[in-house]
Amino acid sequence: MAPETDLMAKIVSLCKRRGFVFQSSEIYGGLNSCYDYGPLGVELKRNVKDAWWNSMVTGREDVVGLDSAILQHPAVWKASGHLDTFSDPLIDCKQCKSRFRADHLQEGSYGEVRDGDDGRPRCPKCDGELTDARQFNLMFKTFMGPVEDAANTVYMRPETAQGIFTNFVNVANSARMKPPFGIAQMGKSFRNEITPGNFVFRTREFEQMEMEYFVPPDESEKWFEYWVEERFEWYVRNGVRRSKLRQRPHAQDELAHYSTGCIDVEYEFPFGWSELEGIANRTDFDLKQHTEHSGKDLSFFDEAEKLRYVPHVIEPAAGCDRTAMTFLVDAYEEEERHNEKTGKTETRTVLRFHPRIAPITVAVFPLVKKEGMPDHARAIVQELAGAGLRTFYDQKGAIGRRYRRQDEVGTPYCLTVDGQTLEDGTVTLRDRDSMEQQRVAGAEVAGFVQAKMSDWRRE
Amino acid sequence: MAPETDLMAKIVSLCKRRGFVFQSSEIYGGLNSCYDYGPLGVELKRNVKDAWWNSMVTGREDVVGLDSAILQHPAVWKASGHLDTFSDPLIDCKQCKSRFRADHLQEGSYGEVRDGDDGRPRCPKCDGELTDARQFNLMFKTFMGPVEDAANTVYMRPETAQGIFTNFVNVANSARMKPPFGIAQMGKSFRNEITPGNFVFRTREFEQMEMEYFVPPDESEKWFEYWVEERFEWYVRNGVRRSKLRQRPHAQDELAHYSTGCIDVEYEFPFGWSELEGIANRTDFDLKQHTEHSGKDLSFFDEAEKLRYVPHVIEPAAGCDRTAMTFLVDAYEEEERHNEKTGKTETRTVLRFHPRIAPITVAVFPLVKKEGMPDHARAIVQELAGAGLRTFYDQKGAIGRRYRRQDEVGTPYCLTVDGQTLEDGTVTLRDRDSMEQQRVAGAEVAGFVQAKMSDWRRE
Repeated sequence: MAPETDLMAKIVSLCKRRGFVFQSSEIYGGLNSCYDYGPLGVELKRNVKDAWWNSMVTGREDVVGLDSAILQHPAVWKASGHLDTFSDPLIDCKQCKSRFRADHLQEGSYGEVRDGDDGRPRCPKCDGELTDARQFNLMFKTFMGPVEDAANTVYMRPETAQGIFTNFVNVANSARMKPPFGIAQMGKSFRNEITPGNFVFRTREFEQMEMEYFVPPDESEKWFEYWVEERFEWYVRNGVRRSKLRQRPHAQDELAHYSTGCIDVEYEFPFGWSELEGIANRTDFDLKQHTEHSGKDLSFFDEAEKLRYVPHVIEPAAGCDRTAMTFLVDAYEEEERHNEKTGKTETRTVLRFHPRIAPITVAVFPLVKKEGMPDHARAIVQELAGAGLRTFYDQKGAIGRRYRRQDEVGTPYCLTVDGQTLEDGTVTLRDRDSMEQQRVAGAEVAGFVQAKMSDWRRE
Repeated sequence: MAPETDLMAKIVSLCKRRGFVFQSSEIYGGLNSCYDYGPLGVELKRNVKDAWWNSMVTGREDVVGLDSAILQHPAVWKASGHLDTFSDPLIDCKQCKSRFRADHLQEGSYGEVRDGDDGRPRCPKCDGELTDARQFNLMFKTFMGPVEDAANTVYMRPETAQGIFTNFVNVANSARMKPPFGIAQMGKSFRNEITPGNFVFRTREFEQMEMEYFVPPDESEKWFEYWVEERFEWYVRNGVRRSKLRQRPHAQDELAHYSTGCIDVEYEFPFGWSELEGIANRTDFDLKQHTEHSGKDLSFFDEAEKLRYVPHVIEPAAGCDRTAMTFLVDAYEEEERHNEKTGKTETRTVLRFHPRIAPITVAVFPLVKKEGMPDHARAIVQELAGAGLRTFYDQKGAIGRRYRRQDEVGTPYCLTVDGQTLEDGTVTLRDRDSMEQQRVAGAEVAGFVQAKMSDWRRE
């Protein structure tokens, strides 16, 4: 296996074995590109979403939240352009019935394409005759109500953003906000991708974290630059190595016709540099489209300036699943270590998550299952949980194995209750990254861990 | 208007005006029974979900979390019985094309039903001829991949529970759990209800909070009783008045054929006693069904007892939206108060949320927008936010109006920075419920508020 494939395979394997990510419906042979998050994965995703929400909403005066429905009025997708243009060109083979994305066929993704006697390309699989390219809309459709016809067709949203635009006036009025201000939303979206892949990087069902920042038109460039910087640094603040991140401005011919600029934050995955998040200047396109299609005025009246205008929009649009995957990939390390007891070199697998992102913050162990150590350890678990720390209790197996199990899922701190604890109340605190141990007074553990979390830096 | 209708109308109006809940796609005339949560509503829902998750997962050694996909393999719904039996009987009028639920037609929900000359019931709207009842499946269906045919049909999950059953072995192995233990999940489900209604009480798109607790067969009755008690008290602990809650055991003929018991937790809404949550003893039905349909062994081998068995399941299944609505309805009060300044009796609208559930915990006001008070107030906001409290800054309008605005959205504590603050650092803390004010030292505010939250009791 190529090293990069090998690394992804190791991560996928660890994800299943330790309960981060399972293939969905696995007992039925799985469902292509659908995944379920296990006990550790759901906590990882919760931490990703909390970190995003805290930085985008809770910690800011100028951004409020929203949670709009997945099923929306079909007119929303007409106005947004998704009904007409959110599609991929597909080509079928008339002989073997294989289906190809026209652009990928041309790029040779399916192998060499031979031209037939009539000058037209032939199927790369069976050399059969191909159809012309046809547009295939990427929205999942369903029917609301008992009759399955066009009048009852609704769509599963392909992005959360449109729910923000349609609620612009309701939110601005009820929350008394005026530009510059933002509306943030997290939630599931669905795209009937022809070529999902790379584990949870591109899936048909996925969770977005989007924010629309509404600004006076003449401030849009300033705020675009602000949000590119802010979003890039968010990944660094949450532990991703700066050297694996870059900004990639879209070329003019990549931009939507209404957009004046878009910059992707990219991460260097084992399969190459790929988009984590796009920050786009969408101008006043969306609000104007919805004004035109709904007949409702979505402009803003600035009382102080006695000025009515349609705000421009800066949109940082991130993906929760691929962010969680980035944290996993970036955290993964195999470390060669000399074992003094056995005299052998051993490989330690460790996830160097930021403590804020790690599914478990503190694991608590009784050294042995007797002499009251389990009760003592459980009391510490309760105390730490009360201080808002994510805890885990484990009394099974040798202490060294317990440490290694926590290293492998990225738990930054392990506490062990031992004989000395029963005498003087101190516990052993073991650090994931340095593997160093130190004794800490029981009453000071919560504060000590919180201070270490604040000071944490990726080595 | 009847008092109960009046109360619901007031709550729906407050929800829109203050940004708890908007009709979805409102600018396009709305989409029947779909709702969007505004800035305060999204925080309310977050608090509901956090309270549930903390009590069901984070705070327990015996329950772990899961987040499975909405789109699952169709075989899952065959095994669970949803494909064959999750349906309502519908009757159409051949003349006016109206559609009725057969059971509701018989109960007279659509008005008096006259029997025709042939002895068959006629349409209650136009007296036309009716069809026989036909079964209508309540699952939303869609197509995965570009071809819209039976082979590509998938369903939007009608419940989160089946994703737990199909992952039973993966979770038990990866998290090293043995019965009795639980797997908890929160997430969207979809049911193509014929008669949604009562605001967000019954909607086609809704968010569930479900837990499956796997137990040795001979312990199922004990754990069933445990979870009924635990779940009932959860609502009380989060501020719902005990007098408005009751338990309703299902009659024998209401139970599914495999179930040995089910008790609903009900709340007395303005429209009557209605189900908040069902706690059911599902026996070994689900695991056995999936074993049979998948061919995979979903039994558990108890190493200590050297015993292999299929665990029985206790399921507490709650709804996030109707829980949020319960908190809103239960918290709503209109209070007649004598205004000493004007000599008039005024009505104060107040939401008496538990402080843990309130969208905002502390609102911070500068008395006036000068003399450095805004900066001082903002510094307090930052400090309280750092202590994990949900804060809100407001400098607009008279201080009395600002208090009333916070009462109406249920903010338990308001802090005001005034002239004295600039002299001695103390601030005024005003209590939502008693409306009493007291001065607190600035450095002690976070701890003071946290202590008040812990001591809070509904009056």
